[in-house]
Amino acid sequence: MNAADLGLPVDVPSTALFTDHYELTMLQAALKGGSADRRSVFEVFTRRLPEGRRYGVVAGTGRVLDAVENFRFDADVIGFLREQRVVDEPTLQWLTSYRFDGDIWGYPEGEVYFPGSPILRVEGSFAQCVLLETVILSILNHDSAIAAAASRMASAAGERPLIEMGARRTHELAAVAASRAAYVGGFTTTSDLAAGFRYGIPTVGTSAHAFTLVHDSERDAFRAQVDSLGRGTTLLVDTYDVAEAVRLAVEVAGPELGAVRIDSGDLLLVAHRVRQQLDELGATKARIIVTSDLDEYAIASLAAAPVDAYGVGTQLVTGSGHPTASMVYKLVARAESADPKAPLVPVAKKSSGGKTSIGGRKWAARRVDEYGTAEAEVIGTGAVPAELSDRQLLVRLVEGGRVVAREPLDVVRERHAAARANLPLSATQLSRGEAVIPTEYV
Amino acid sequence: MNAADLGLPVDVPSTALFTDHYELTMLQAALKGGSADRRSVFEVFTRRLPEGRRYGVVAGTGRVLDAVENFRFDADVIGFLREQRVVDEPTLQWLTSYRFDGDIWGYPEGEVYFPGSPILRVEGSFAQCVLLETVILSILNHDSAIAAAASRMASAAGERPLIEMGARRTHELAAVAASRAAYVGGFTTTSDLAAGFRYGIPTVGTSAHAFTLVHDSERDAFRAQVDSLGRGTTLLVDTYDVAEAVRLAVEVAGPELGAVRIDSGDLLLVAHRVRQQLDELGATKARIIVTSDLDEYAIASLAAAPVDAYGVGTQLVTGSGHPTASMVYKLVARAESADPKAPLVPVAKKSSGGKTSIGGRKWAARRVDEYGTAEAEVIGTGAVPAELSDRQLLVRLVEGGRVVAREPLDVVRERHAAARANLPLSATQLSRGEAVIPTEYV
Repeated sequence: MNAADLGLPVDVPSTALFTDHYELTMLQAALKGGSADRRSVFEVFTRRLPEGRRYGVVAGTGRVLDAVENFRFDADVIGFLREQRVVDEPTLQWLTSYRFDGDIWGYPEGEVYFPGSPILRVEGSFAQCVLLETVILSILNHDSAIAAAASRMASAAGERPLIEMGARRTHELAAVAASRAAYVGGFTTTSDLAAGFRYGIPTVGTSAHAFTLVHDSERDAFRAQVDSLGRGTTLLVDTYDVAEAVRLAVEVAGPELGAVRIDSGDLLLVAHRVRQQLDELGATKARIIVTSDLDEYAIASLAAAPVDAYGVGTQLVTGSGHPTASMVYKLVARAESADPKAPLVPVAKKSSGGKTSIGGRKWAARRVDEYGTAEAEVIGTGAVPAELSDRQLLVRLVEGGRVVAREPLDVVRERHAAARANLPLSATQLSRGEAVIPTEYV
Repeated sequence: MNAADLGLPVDVPSTALFTDHYELTMLQAALKGGSADRRSVFEVFTRRLPEGRRYGVVAGTGRVLDAVENFRFDADVIGFLREQRVVDEPTLQWLTSYRFDGDIWGYPEGEVYFPGSPILRVEGSFAQCVLLETVILSILNHDSAIAAAASRMASAAGERPLIEMGARRTHELAAVAASRAAYVGGFTTTSDLAAGFRYGIPTVGTSAHAFTLVHDSERDAFRAQVDSLGRGTTLLVDTYDVAEAVRLAVEVAGPELGAVRIDSGDLLLVAHRVRQQLDELGATKARIIVTSDLDEYAIASLAAAPVDAYGVGTQLVTGSGHPTASMVYKLVARAESADPKAPLVPVAKKSSGGKTSIGGRKWAARRVDEYGTAEAEVIGTGAVPAELSDRQLLVRLVEGGRVVAREPLDVVRERHAAARANLPLSATQLSRGEAVIPTEYV
């Protein structure tokens, strides 16, 4: 794999070290004790949605497929594990030839989910599957958290475009994944060049306060920008005095001025004033972009303001209060051997201390009403009821180790928009609430 | 650079795309308009600490140095920028030979900081410096947020070791940086093999509930684990019934049992019961490790419990409520040309809408009392007062583009412990409060 394939501008020789130490020690003990080959089913799910949230958004599935395909223990990695005595020689030998050759089913990326939804189901030998816990959860927990925040912001923004500009507020590579997840959730563009390079998301941007400040005057700065980037550029108007800057902007760029950006202050008030001023100056087509500490609530509060686009940073890349989706990866069933005919036995943690789960290999379906609106997330372990057979949510992603469900990001983005549109109307209320449809176990 | 140098298991051919689109368009306009060569000073600082926090922790500096050194626009990157028409040909030509050749000063990594502290100061031409905004902020904002949470947890844990185990709750590469930052803040070990590989942080782990569940009985699981990992291993005792599991653990491993891990339930209550049971069974040296949804408050509440080590995941890697440090990168001074004799003119955003800052190239010093305890963060733009000349905080990190201040992570970790120890005692109170020392401008 090279940079263009796997997360740019980063070349990932292997994803096998995105693994917790205990996965390898479990493998060692299982290899020695004889349980390593037992046919196993692991599932990814979340026990609850983040407090107040009405739905979750599956994001990162495409990245999971890349990570699984690339999960290889090459010589460098084996050398490290040997030197640090993480596991014994027989285990290292086993790891050397590791290739995931099981099956993965999952909710298609962009789909919504609810408490208990079996978002991903990984099937294979215990040894094969147990190693994938950390890398799968890292990706899904991060990306789904960002996509959920993005989806709420996109609902609040309605038809207005959303610019992702949070790279500076999160880890430099988390930022690339965050741009991707934001796009899935409904964002339009990103400031992050790495996200443009890796995922083809359109990138945008013109200037910061530093550009104005490095010049002797705001007029010099605007002139330099317009000379170089054209009259259609976006001028940042809040370095000194907003009204004076707007006047200057139209003076320098003329009525063809593309847009002004406001990055501080009372955006509602300032946007109204700036719109009036732009119109009076004849720049009736100049757009207004606002970018200061926005979240879904601030975006919603600007619905009636003359704003043409929103740029969102911090609150997007930190999941707007919920930076992780708290998904878990649990063994839910296993057979006594590798024999495909050996029956799967449901298993689950049972101690009284909490964190219990429901054993068994699950299917999931979304029941809808006569208008196609979701009514319930139905989850079961037996046969799928006939009336739900065409509403099943899990699709095959990996078959015998081979990825069979790659898809363009735009398909994922459209799927999310459709899934959200089919939820009850209260799904997109920003106020705190419960999951918008119940989870039913049959 | 190869994987071993730069963030493993990931090879980063270049960090130049960890950049916002607008940095390149500003560059283009500055190159055309003539301001690109102006000698400039950018500073990284934060306007406030996260709400309720009493000090911040500088982390990520070492990673920043790697990123700056590796900030190169190679053919792939130039090709992408050309194809997407991000900037014009003259700008692409300029980027092709980009190497940062300015100076960087900063707080040494591990040091504490306060509102206004000039954590990093980047000096060079406007064009050279303006490009580094995003990558510098991404690293410092992420790593410092994690280190601050880690530092509070380390205070709460006292002498007891802390295990970082949050990889599954954050982006897979953010996790590696989070392990590093946690180690700086006072954590002892990590579960993340990639962090062990890249930074030499000791990795630990033994087994999860899945290991118990894949076996026909808890006894089989414990026996398999002890057979493979030895009697000194840590057995997870909360899959079914904790008391029965503790009994089994000692039966299988004998009184030499290394430790038991409790991952759910009322940890205070359960730890006391388990300690008593272990002692009664003769396993008086078996340790108790707790790992369920801990944060600094939960750790503090267990201070009187018979707990030997804490494992922390979600709350660590999400900054315990504050996943980003909200640092900004601002132009604070610039000359009229590249001439080193041209005077630096302080600059700052001035609009009434907020986000204002203080112009001028700054020094910082920490004033201490007669016992060496910090009294104030003193920041100025003129001459350093004689009484503070040996208390200055900024050190040279990069000189003429050459990194001059690499240091081992253990040095950074010790520096943080010393810096925290020299704060007033109220610094490590977990209750919400103001910055523990005031910031004074002179």
